[in-house]
Amino acid sequence: MLHSLTLADVLREHARSWPRQTAAVDGDVRLGYRDLHTRVTKLAHALAEHGVQPGDRLLWMGQNSARILELLLAGGMLGAGLCCVNWRQTAEELAFVLDDLAPAVVVWQEAEIGDAVREARATSRAAASARWLAHDTEQDPYETFLDGGAPYDDFETRDPAETAMLLYTAAFAGTPNAAMLSHQAIITQSLVMAHAADITPEYTYLNSGPMFHLATLMTTFATFVVGGTNVFTPRVDAAELCRLIEAEGCNGAFLMGPTIRQILEVNRDGRYDLKSLRSHAGKPAWTDMTTVDTSPFARNPAGYGQTEVMGMMTMNLLATRPQGSHGRAVPVVQTRIVDPDDREVADGEVGELVARGPTVMNGYWNRPELNDERLRGGWHHTNDLARREPDGSITFIGPKTRLIKSAAENIYPAEVEQALARHPAVAECAIIGVPDPRWTQSVKAIVALREGEVATEHDIIEHVRGQIASYKKPRSVEFVDRLPRNGFAIDYDELDARFGGGGYPGARP
Amino acid sequence: MLHSLTLADVLREHARSWPRQTAAVDGDVRLGYRDLHTRVTKLAHALAEHGVQPGDRLLWMGQNSARILELLLAGGMLGAGLCCVNWRQTAEELAFVLDDLAPAVVVWQEAEIGDAVREARATSRAAASARWLAHDTEQDPYETFLDGGAPYDDFETRDPAETAMLLYTAAFAGTPNAAMLSHQAIITQSLVMAHAADITPEYTYLNSGPMFHLATLMTTFATFVVGGTNVFTPRVDAAELCRLIEAEGCNGAFLMGPTIRQILEVNRDGRYDLKSLRSHAGKPAWTDMTTVDTSPFARNPAGYGQTEVMGMMTMNLLATRPQGSHGRAVPVVQTRIVDPDDREVADGEVGELVARGPTVMNGYWNRPELNDERLRGGWHHTNDLARREPDGSITFIGPKTRLIKSAAENIYPAEVEQALARHPAVAECAIIGVPDPRWTQSVKAIVALREGEVATEHDIIEHVRGQIASYKKPRSVEFVDRLPRNGFAIDYDELDARFGGGGYPGARP
Repeated sequence: MLHSLTLADVLREHARSWPRQTAAVDGDVRLGYRDLHTRVTKLAHALAEHGVQPGDRLLWMGQNSARILELLLAGGMLGAGLCCVNWRQTAEELAFVLDDLAPAVVVWQEAEIGDAVREARATSRAAASARWLAHDTEQDPYETFLDGGAPYDDFETRDPAETAMLLYTAAFAGTPNAAMLSHQAIITQSLVMAHAADITPEYTYLNSGPMFHLATLMTTFATFVVGGTNVFTPRVDAAELCRLIEAEGCNGAFLMGPTIRQILEVNRDGRYDLKSLRSHAGKPAWTDMTTVDTSPFARNPAGYGQTEVMGMMTMNLLATRPQGSHGRAVPVVQTRIVDPDDREVADGEVGELVARGPTVMNGYWNRPELNDERLRGGWHHTNDLARREPDGSITFIGPKTRLIKSAAENIYPAEVEQALARHPAVAECAIIGVPDPRWTQSVKAIVALREGEVATEHDIIEHVRGQIASYKKPRSVEFVDRLPRNGFAIDYDELDARFGGGGYPGARP
Repeated sequence: MLHSLTLADVLREHARSWPRQTAAVDGDVRLGYRDLHTRVTKLAHALAEHGVQPGDRLLWMGQNSARILELLLAGGMLGAGLCCVNWRQTAEELAFVLDDLAPAVVVWQEAEIGDAVREARATSRAAASARWLAHDTEQDPYETFLDGGAPYDDFETRDPAETAMLLYTAAFAGTPNAAMLSHQAIITQSLVMAHAADITPEYTYLNSGPMFHLATLMTTFATFVVGGTNVFTPRVDAAELCRLIEAEGCNGAFLMGPTIRQILEVNRDGRYDLKSLRSHAGKPAWTDMTTVDTSPFARNPAGYGQTEVMGMMTMNLLATRPQGSHGRAVPVVQTRIVDPDDREVADGEVGELVARGPTVMNGYWNRPELNDERLRGGWHHTNDLARREPDGSITFIGPKTRLIKSAAENIYPAEVEQALARHPAVAECAIIGVPDPRWTQSVKAIVALREGEVATEHDIIEHVRGQIASYKKPRSVEFVDRLPRNGFAIDYDELDARFGGGGYPGARP
């Protein structure tokens, strides 16, 4: 208790240290930190009276709102975690999340997604045992529920290792999985981000990206932790973003390229003053309209990140050379690059990137077997391949999909593909393993050449040999017009079927 | 283990991420992070072979050295804490520390302090059970001991809540007490300091202040945690500091006013280039010689701090108004201002400042009763008085020495003295409590007037009444030529004896 610091504790201190500082702006709602603390306390009491227990899940099925922050913090007072679901999903996908999480309380939105939510609720088995609160309709509204809670904060502080937030991540193994992020993970990473992006109590952040995604949330959290101001807008609308940036003096926002182009169009006549916004994105017109961001992260943005490690795990700004590596680990994480037997590989060798530290997730919700696998030996296995450069920086190679075993050697298709793709005649390529009676498997390349370009099997093999260890080079090459794909992803199963792939280590017979 | 991050873990990652980055410079010794990791690993093995156990203490009896960092990190690999003793102390004081800590290993220095160390060793009962290693002589030298350890790091990571460092603090209750600071406290506070003072991997810090004091160490730690360079020098010598700043390109240093004046003198002719040094200290000549520090902490330095909370607990830079408050809590600590019954007082009322969070000490070594008292209810009681201002910022009032009880009211002498001292005729003043049959105690002021100034008892009482709650005003005033003192501190026992003070709540009869 003496050393405890949860997100609810941060709120408690802000309520005293920054009572009138604006914590959240959402439409007509404007909450100072003291007001926010009162509302969160009432919500926590209402949730507790409803029966919410430590370890329970709360589910937000809606667009961006200050209520996400309220639910996160009230959950933190009780030891319950909040999940923000991707509201663009189908009813079927939403029903999967409902059944997977079995939430104690769901807050749902009618506007834009009401039909999908209703259908999901009707088909999910777990939906009936949840309390459903309405975000924007009259039947059992969130606001009435909150108002029923007592306003005195008599909750004890809790263990910062408890899960505060659950976020669904990429479906590596068929289904999406919810990464459980602790209070400690969020607060620790927020301190790192605050330094990198120079986020201080004077900072105002426009939550204009999806709040079911850390790309948006990592700045939301950092802004909250240091006592700054979060502004919420339900979804991307260029004119509304301009209005908010001007009205609230926003210093940061989550803006993708297309949104920036829309803003440039909307604000062609300069009717909105966007000079409060710090920006590092390219075009001169945009740079003129905003203020150049001089923070270390803006001067050298990005790195390697993953929801499972609470966002950025390496930062480019920590590399001394701008030559293709993805920076170095932030100072709160340990990284190793390991072979399939979890032995650390030598510098320069490709292996799986693993991590340990306070920002690593508590595991995936409701996936004990996957957790045993991914968190084995006290290290989070990222499922991504990387290489340690001689200067200690880390280069991300690609997702660790399948492993090829040739003699005693482990060969990662992604590494061979990366080398192969540098051949000027190659448009796209894929690597598969084919069963080999002597060597277990041998490496086969499937190559589509650029129009009008020519290359022989020998050319391709020699090109790869010149770049990586010889045992990794393809033994054979097949030429195709284009690679089969599942959406964006190369369809390796189809390639195996067409070109005799198989015999992968660990594959089921 | 999955979420662990100790100082040894930080070193492990730096050894991989920053293998050739200079970690430490000390005389002829220059260690990259990979080299430092190897030396620390050998030292940890040597310590383990000697029998050092988790919870043991290591003691450094010497001046500044890179070996302090090595011992801290090797201790961290084993779960043992390092204490750096104040080497300016007498033999008697050093013997007290030896007996209090009962260290497993002592590293001691001959130069300047050899006689005092030998005398302390001869008189201490616990000295004989420690292994004594020589820093700068030939009998059982540190270097030979370290060289005997195995160079492979096969230690498991440990609990970051373990004590990493012990630092003796002010003797509130007669004897000095060693505050136990955890890995978590040091790393968390380092992230906060790194942001405030803009400490990055490019930062080089000159350890020119005493390394038994957090005022120096808080920057040492932040520099280490982010992967920067620490330069060590045994003690303050202006010409040597200039040489090191120029040779190593130091960006920061611990420099008090007299040292800055010495440097200005030594470098009058500009023979040393000190432009790498960031500085915010005053004189134009100094500003010209160095580079202006634009970090938030330099623009608005200081705040309220204490060894027991790992340095700065509030920072002035977090206040929006520069009017006398001591800023706001850093975002990793909770603060409350409480009455003697640990109930939170209203804003504007004076009470004891208490704190909770990951940067709070683990308690004082070997002081179970004091810990029960100071850490009661899961809050660290700072023994200092403070007031919460209407804007949420905190004003430090003074040490909580004695409490006066008048009727049911608690009156802190420091608060009354602060109000009284604002009277233009008052040179110095003290407040005592005198027994009162009806109200338990009544408040008495002892006042020395400025030469040539006049004020009556009535003037004094009315002046105080105009500033603070009426019940706190003195009931009587005694005028003296000057206050009795013990060194710098007012001798309240003498005042009580002379003016009938007594009846303090909780005082022994």
